[in-house]
Amino acid sequence: MNFFLLIFLKSVSSEEKRIIYKVLTYTSLKDSSNIGMKDWIQMAADIEKHYFHYDGFVILHGTDTMAYTASALSFMMENLGKPVILTGAQVPISELRSDGRDNLLGAIYIAGHYCIPEVTLFFNNKLFRGNRCEKLSADDFDAFHSPNLPPLVTMAVGIKVSWESIYRPTALSAFRVHTELNRNVGLLRLFPGITSATAHAFLQPPMEGVVLETYGAGNCPSDRKDLLEEIGAACRRGVIIVNCTQCSKGSVKAYYETGSVLLQAGVVPGLDMTPEAALSKLSYVLSLDLSIEEKRKMMRTNIRGEMSVLPKQEVPGQLQEN
Amino acid sequence: MNFFLLIFLKSVSSEEKRIIYKVLTYTSLKDSSNIGMKDWIQMAADIEKHYFHYDGFVILHGTDTMAYTASALSFMMENLGKPVILTGAQVPISELRSDGRDNLLGAIYIAGHYCIPEVTLFFNNKLFRGNRCEKLSADDFDAFHSPNLPPLVTMAVGIKVSWESIYRPTALSAFRVHTELNRNVGLLRLFPGITSATAHAFLQPPMEGVVLETYGAGNCPSDRKDLLEEIGAACRRGVIIVNCTQCSKGSVKAYYETGSVLLQAGVVPGLDMTPEAALSKLSYVLSLDLSIEEKRKMMRTNIRGEMSVLPKQEVPGQLQEN
Amino acid sequence: MNFFLLIFLKSVSSEEKRIIYKVLTYTSLKDSSNIGMKDWIQMAADIEKHYFHYDGFVILHGTDTMAYTASALSFMMENLGKPVILTGAQVPISELRSDGRDNLLGAIYIAGHYCIPEVTLFFNNKLFRGNRCEKLSADDFDAFHSPNLPPLVTMAVGIKVSWESIYRPTALSAFRVHTELNRNVGLLRLFPGITSATAHAFLQPPMEGVVLETYGAGNCPSDRKDLLEEIGAACRRGVIIVNCTQCSKGSVKAYYETGSVLLQAGVVPGLDMTPEAALSKLSYVLSLDLSIEEKRKMMRTNIRGEMSVLPKQEVPGQLQEN
Amino acid sequence: MNFFLLIFLKSVSSEEKRIIYKVLTYTSLKDSSNIGMKDWIQMAADIEKHYFHYDGFVILHGTDTMAYTASALSFMMENLGKPVILTGAQVPISELRSDGRDNLLGAIYIAGHYCIPEVTLFFNNKLFRGNRCEKLSADDFDAFHSPNLPPLVTMAVGIKVSWESIYRPTALSAFRVHTELNRNVGLLRLFPGITSATAHAFLQPPMEGVVLETYGAGNCPSDRKDLLEEIGAACRRGVIIVNCTQCSKGSVKAYYETGSVLLQAGVVPGLDMTPEAALSKLSYVLSLDLSIEEKRKMMRTNIRGEMSVLPKQEVPGQLQEN
Repeated sequence: MNFFLLIFLKSVSSEEKRIIYKVLTYTSLKDSSNIGMKDWIQMAADIEKHYFHYDGFVILHGTDTMAYTASALSFMMENLGKPVILTGAQVPISELRSDGRDNLLGAIYIAGHYCIPEVTLFFNNKLFRGNRCEKLSADDFDAFHSPNLPPLVTMAVGIKVSWESIYRPTALSAFRVHTELNRNVGLLRLFPGITSATAHAFLQPPMEGVVLETYGAGNCPSDRKDLLEEIGAACRRGVIIVNCTQCSKGSVKAYYETGSVLLQAGVVPGLDMTPEAALSKLSYVLSLDLSIEEKRKMMRTNIRGEMSVLPKQEVPGQLQEN
Repeated sequence: MNFFLLIFLKSVSSEEKRIIYKVLTYTSLKDSSNIGMKDWIQMAADIEKHYFHYDGFVILHGTDTMAYTASALSFMMENLGKPVILTGAQVPISELRSDGRDNLLGAIYIAGHYCIPEVTLFFNNKLFRGNRCEKLSADDFDAFHSPNLPPLVTMAVGIKVSWESIYRPTALSAFRVHTELNRNVGLLRLFPGITSATAHAFLQPPMEGVVLETYGAGNCPSDRKDLLEEIGAACRRGVIIVNCTQCSKGSVKAYYETGSVLLQAGVVPGLDMTPEAALSKLSYVLSLDLSIEEKRKMMRTNIRGEMSVLPKQEVPGQLQEN
Repeated sequence: MNFFLLIFLKSVSSEEKRIIYKVLTYTSLKDSSNIGMKDWIQMAADIEKHYFHYDGFVILHGTDTMAYTASALSFMMENLGKPVILTGAQVPISELRSDGRDNLLGAIYIAGHYCIPEVTLFFNNKLFRGNRCEKLSADDFDAFHSPNLPPLVTMAVGIKVSWESIYRPTALSAFRVHTELNRNVGLLRLFPGITSATAHAFLQPPMEGVVLETYGAGNCPSDRKDLLEEIGAACRRGVIIVNCTQCSKGSVKAYYETGSVLLQAGVVPGLDMTPEAALSKLSYVLSLDLSIEEKRKMMRTNIRGEMSVLPKQEVPGQLQEN
Repeated sequence: MNFFLLIFLKSVSSEEKRIIYKVLTYTSLKDSSNIGMKDWIQMAADIEKHYFHYDGFVILHGTDTMAYTASALSFMMENLGKPVILTGAQVPISELRSDGRDNLLGAIYIAGHYCIPEVTLFFNNKLFRGNRCEKLSADDFDAFHSPNLPPLVTMAVGIKVSWESIYRPTALSAFRVHTELNRNVGLLRLFPGITSATAHAFLQPPMEGVVLETYGAGNCPSDRKDLLEEIGAACRRGVIIVNCTQCSKGSVKAYYETGSVLLQAGVVPGLDMTPEAALSKLSYVLSLDLSIEEKRKMMRTNIRGEMSVLPKQEVPGQLQEN
């Protein structure tokens, strides 16, 4: 059985570094496959309720949907100023051999010692940004990875914090939790031979936001007029479609003809967002009181560190220009 | 521009090891995003036509859908007795810095020297079984990986062949190409909050085969009666649904309640097949003249090395039995 | 403080798999930097004393010299039929964050469940052959590696044993411990500009065996007559010099002129032995009652799985022959 | 045969990025095992001679001693303001399958496009700081690593430069080449059972500088009075002994009793310098006109980016202080 509870931390003076914590257990513990939007809202609301009495928060969560929950919480929590760390175990903590003890200890240690005001995920001695990671393996203790951003913290004999990578809100606004989410979102993965009937059925109302998992650097079949017509029609009637790559590593670009046809059809480039992050960002953005164009713009803009903003010298593909 | 052509090899005497090859170029070169079932059939047919005149075949293919094509060809080619190697480049071979030259040379070298009678994919000094790999990265030269099977060949200063891993047909039958494929297949990825309306729309006729991308070791929300009902109804009306994990590494099992509800609904466990392999296997199996139960059985059985058959001592989860 | 004690295991019936163990603590615990030949002999003697009453042995050992001890014990224990596993911790087991608990539990688990009749080293969920590993990192929990042989066991959610790699004695002889070791051995590392005076001083009596850490695939400066003369003279007066590479990965060969001059001087090729293994093997072999030529032959022959015996198709450098 | 030549580059306007280069070939090409201090001095002198006529320099060098040469050149070149890149091949460039073409092209490309004013080593699509790397493998194309510093440049489809890691001289002084080096240096590796006679012989005059390869985080046997006495005596008579770890990764510290005895004996902590860097730094420092104490201080101070200067929050072992 997976488990699910919240631990609130309060560290004492920075000299002593003794971490005081309190455990909040939900009455009904859930397997993480059963975690849904209602649960995200409850977790976020509980953190909001206790926000000013604690210095950090650790959430115990099953591994299966932990990357989805971490992504969703990162968008729901606006102007977060304290660490919120999700962790769990590949082998239940009640077993002889379990990674649960080390993961729990490490998460509490970081929450109590370092001010990393992000929603993060701690696993196997690495702290990842929550909206950057994916469950990599169903079998290994090294279960998560963050393919396009190195870990924020690495724990070994010493502890290495990449302070330059920590994301901090730039606005001087108070912490608040956004508890509305739009459920009419979905993931559609391209594959050779996908029929336009499949795309048509998937993009029907009430669908409002779709993560389109494309090939390579954001490509789709440019010679499939029927498919592109379905995608274009959905965009025109207000569905927000975000282009994310099926590859674990790398980013959506618009080099090739095969990628630019999606741009022309109205699809928003998702750069290097994970599908998990793009999907929960869609749920969040679609629930905001904004125009459709403002929402599309928000989808292609970095708001919680979920996508890489590349410095000039690293712009990929510069070789083509030579 | 990606490219697409066939090279046929004929090696001379094993002493000399001089590789004679002939190039066959298609009149219309395609970006790999535009490769579809019709192209798979043409490639397979062309290999069949020249099968007895050459010792091996190298196919140049864009990277975006190469793993899909490799999977599809592996199923379409029955009783294959010669190497068929796909390769390509992350940076076009016409650029100054390109991985295309090394990939092409390496693929020809292997095709001309080693009898590896499988459909394989050669990239960045590694030869993978074709139906085991995925495009991992949109940016790196190390673009492909084979998460659940080590490479068959590793090229360094020396060349290391894992002969014990080479898959060979056990039946004494002649090589033939199966050129029919069923197009009514699709990929549906679970995510928290997926609506039953989405599943319903996706599973409608003419859909006949679906790869369901589940959580972790094959789990789905066990408390979502509405969703399970849609899945169960599809299975009952003859849709073949195969359970594959969203994780890159690892295998679908049936430990938890959250996994076994899918079994009960009639979903076929896909073990450690990649979604690419499962999808093209569905296209192949659905086109065979078999009963629905025979097709389901074939989907959960290893037929081209596409899934791991675990020896006893490696059965995962044995700790639970103690 | 590092620690040092022995745990003896006795597993009950294979059905129940309950592991009974007994702890033997040395009165004076030693930092592993202080472990020497006398300690190796004591550990080996203690295992010999209790050999028939237990099914396996776990030795707790500091990490700094653990690879040396594991190598030495592997040679001293002749016809070993039970698991002897060394383990330890990068962070002391008394600390909050420590890898000691998991390493200890894992080592006991393997010793109690699997018949792997070798001297092995367990660290960070991997079981390595003892005479194949090196301390890789002073900082990371992943402290050891086995550069030229994959781990014998990998522990994750499931446990994967590479049964085909387990080394078993082929002679039907009784277990015995060889408790004599020759101390007149040393390691000499080549570097550009090494003077013949340095080599001369190092190779003086009472030195009897030297591991020469060469460049790349076993190369030394072929144009340094003075240096080669010192090496040749030492070989002629009976010093056994073994050629091991400074590179972590790879093997000593004799391609280049620069490598073959050492062969001509009388140096024994050490193939892919680690310096740790080669050094303790020298200590062992030099203490045997054999002729100098028999000792040299033993040094270039695999006796405990410490060097790779390559199958024909993997012979490196075959490209040169084409 | 390995090869050895110099290529001088001159890039034209930054818009066109066309790289003009000139090749300088030595009359006698040397296997890199035969490269010594005289060759280092010649290479450095040749670069000094052509320094003002070219924007960058590429040196073709055999792999075996390339890390030693790169380290030595980094110290010999004072106030370097232009890129000096060493590269080579695991398989000769004349072979069908060779990494030499890509390594050469990549090195020229970087030298012509980026101002990285360091002595660096380019191999397998990675540019390393020269005094940070080691030859890792005798067999793989990925032959070098830089265990304690990530690559300065990574080449994939795009090119990623870690500008924040580039080392630049802070003094406003003119480039000059220091062409004197002290040859009386050596490497002594600790091992269990090392005799004081071995240490005594090795530390005898004319030896002036020794890299002592210790265990783990810089430890040596603290209970070996005889050995420590030999080391202390050498320090007292003016030999500079630098403590470097045998581990590939990690740094020499002074936690344990077993490490601090070396400090007390007068040994200089080498932090995370590679043995290659420490040895060539010794050759350089010993040839300067400084007092013995100034030389010792220079050995423990970062002068060319060869050792990590840790920011406060990353000081290893902070856990011990809690």
